[in-house]
Amino acid sequence: MNEFDFIRRYLQRQQPDDNLILGIGDDAAVIRPALGFDLCFSSDMLLKNRHFFADVSPEDLAWKVLAVNISDMAAMGAKPRWALLSAGLPELSEDWLNRFCGSLFALADRFGVTLIGGDTTKGDLVFNVTIIGELPQGKALRRDAAQAGDDIWVSGRIGLAAAALNCRLQNCTLPTALYQQCEAELLRPEPRVALGQAVLPFAHAAQDISDGLAQDIGHILKASDVGAELWADELPSLPELKTVLTEEQWLAYTLAGGDDYELVFTAPVGAREAVAAAAECSGTAVTRIGTINDTGRLQIIGSDGKEIKLTALGFDHFG
Amino acid sequence: MNEFDFIRRYLQRQQPDDNLILGIGDDAAVIRPALGFDLCFSSDMLLKNRHFFADVSPEDLAWKVLAVNISDMAAMGAKPRWALLSAGLPELSEDWLNRFCGSLFALADRFGVTLIGGDTTKGDLVFNVTIIGELPQGKALRRDAAQAGDDIWVSGRIGLAAAALNCRLQNCTLPTALYQQCEAELLRPEPRVALGQAVLPFAHAAQDISDGLAQDIGHILKASDVGAELWADELPSLPELKTVLTEEQWLAYTLAGGDDYELVFTAPVGAREAVAAAAECSGTAVTRIGTINDTGRLQIIGSDGKEIKLTALGFDHFG
Repeated sequence: MNEFDFIRRYLQRQQPDDNLILGIGDDAAVIRPALGFDLCFSSDMLLKNRHFFADVSPEDLAWKVLAVNISDMAAMGAKPRWALLSAGLPELSEDWLNRFCGSLFALADRFGVTLIGGDTTKGDLVFNVTIIGELPQGKALRRDAAQAGDDIWVSGRIGLAAAALNCRLQNCTLPTALYQQCEAELLRPEPRVALGQAVLPFAHAAQDISDGLAQDIGHILKASDVGAELWADELPSLPELKTVLTEEQWLAYTLAGGDDYELVFTAPVGAREAVAAAAECSGTAVTRIGTINDTGRLQIIGSDGKEIKLTALGFDHFG
Repeated sequence: MNEFDFIRRYLQRQQPDDNLILGIGDDAAVIRPALGFDLCFSSDMLLKNRHFFADVSPEDLAWKVLAVNISDMAAMGAKPRWALLSAGLPELSEDWLNRFCGSLFALADRFGVTLIGGDTTKGDLVFNVTIIGELPQGKALRRDAAQAGDDIWVSGRIGLAAAALNCRLQNCTLPTALYQQCEAELLRPEPRVALGQAVLPFAHAAQDISDGLAQDIGHILKASDVGAELWADELPSLPELKTVLTEEQWLAYTLAGGDDYELVFTAPVGAREAVAAAAECSGTAVTRIGTINDTGRLQIIGSDGKEIKLTALGFDHFG
């Protein structure tokens, strides 16, 4: 099976799409943008032994490759529409490809994403997805729009993916059932597209948590030229994790773990009911974890009311 | 220097662009499409030891990574506008990064391409570019638009890149000066953007030559449900190459070598003067190398008037 057979058999599918003039199979795909909409673009590259373990199942791998990109669209409040997939693939069995593509298209279909192009080449496992989303003109949830006084909200639960990763790396120990629960978050993060679109009308700044909550909020603070106070006790987690891990571990995984792909966003205090309604209608739990201020720095407050110094936890990048 | 420093120092540049609402530095870039235009999308992934040698200079590497993508826009008749670059990079010196980025942006600037996003990660050298171009609505040069009776045209000279590659792989021997001339084509292919746009009003089908002329014309024939006759004696090459290589080598490199990134396009016989004018105004030589017919197959005619069987040259993919 050569590259062209592979594309024809696994990737080329006909789907109704008014804006797609020309899909896979030419030098480039052609999109006719809808009037009144901006387009968003993001790329993520995933490398073996860096973003996934070599023994990952093809289903989980396909999910993650696409989900982390869809998550970037969620963070803009955009509707994901199209994707280009580049893949370096060693000799793979048809079984492997069937399972990979089955999982990829199941996720793509769930979010209304059409594969419009890409590239396949022989090589070690490496993937790059470029995703394209649609937004009402001028409405993007940007990082530079947080305002002093805003609440800070986060979706879902954070730190679970990092706990699973660190357990696998033997940096901590988790009971089997708890590990499996955390591993599910690591392998199959759930892009918060519905929430991103639901908060679009009133949220100020947003981003998804890929590098760890503290670092990712840091991007918002820097871009918006504001500061923030985060309440460690309010960070949404699994209660069992807090009992099994040391406090340092729990803080490290929750604040700096990354790979959560939850949304962190800021919204004015007056929008609390609207946030609750957006959470309800999108079926996504949200937690208020702090406030934006004008201090220009990120302070994390512990249960004793004192500031937790991230540098004491081994992080250099926050000040 | 971490990923964010790298992005800030090397990749984030301010350029005037009416359609770019938000560039590098958020979860996604935001483009406001111009009225009356379609957008084209293409991705190419380049892996070390597959698409480039490990000892390639950073300047040549950056050129190729971007040029092969710009070439896809040329093949659609589109104007390249924006690009996303994902890169897996080992620990690299600032000197290496300066040279890579200097060459990348020099080429991007020459073609009016703005870098709007991407991803950097630590890993072995691997690159993926997604390029986005603009086209007047409905005007794309597609592969499925060739018509029986069309002339077949090719830009520049073909087979040089394959000759250089095969010389390096010790499959053939070239005098030093000739090798260097061919190597320049391999390392720094010239995207034919001006030609693609110039032939847009009258050309039927087009594509760029990445996998070899015969295979790439085969895509047009299959998509358009037509056949073609190619005249081997008319294929544009370097006269010295024909004298140094065996006939089999010359035919193999010219017909199946790939990496040429020249344009092959079809146009009605009545457009010959228009083709000549487009070649003149874009400063790109073009050569008429055959005709489209309704035979449904690709025939390559040698200097003796007899058909050259590609299978006899070791190619399985053509019929």
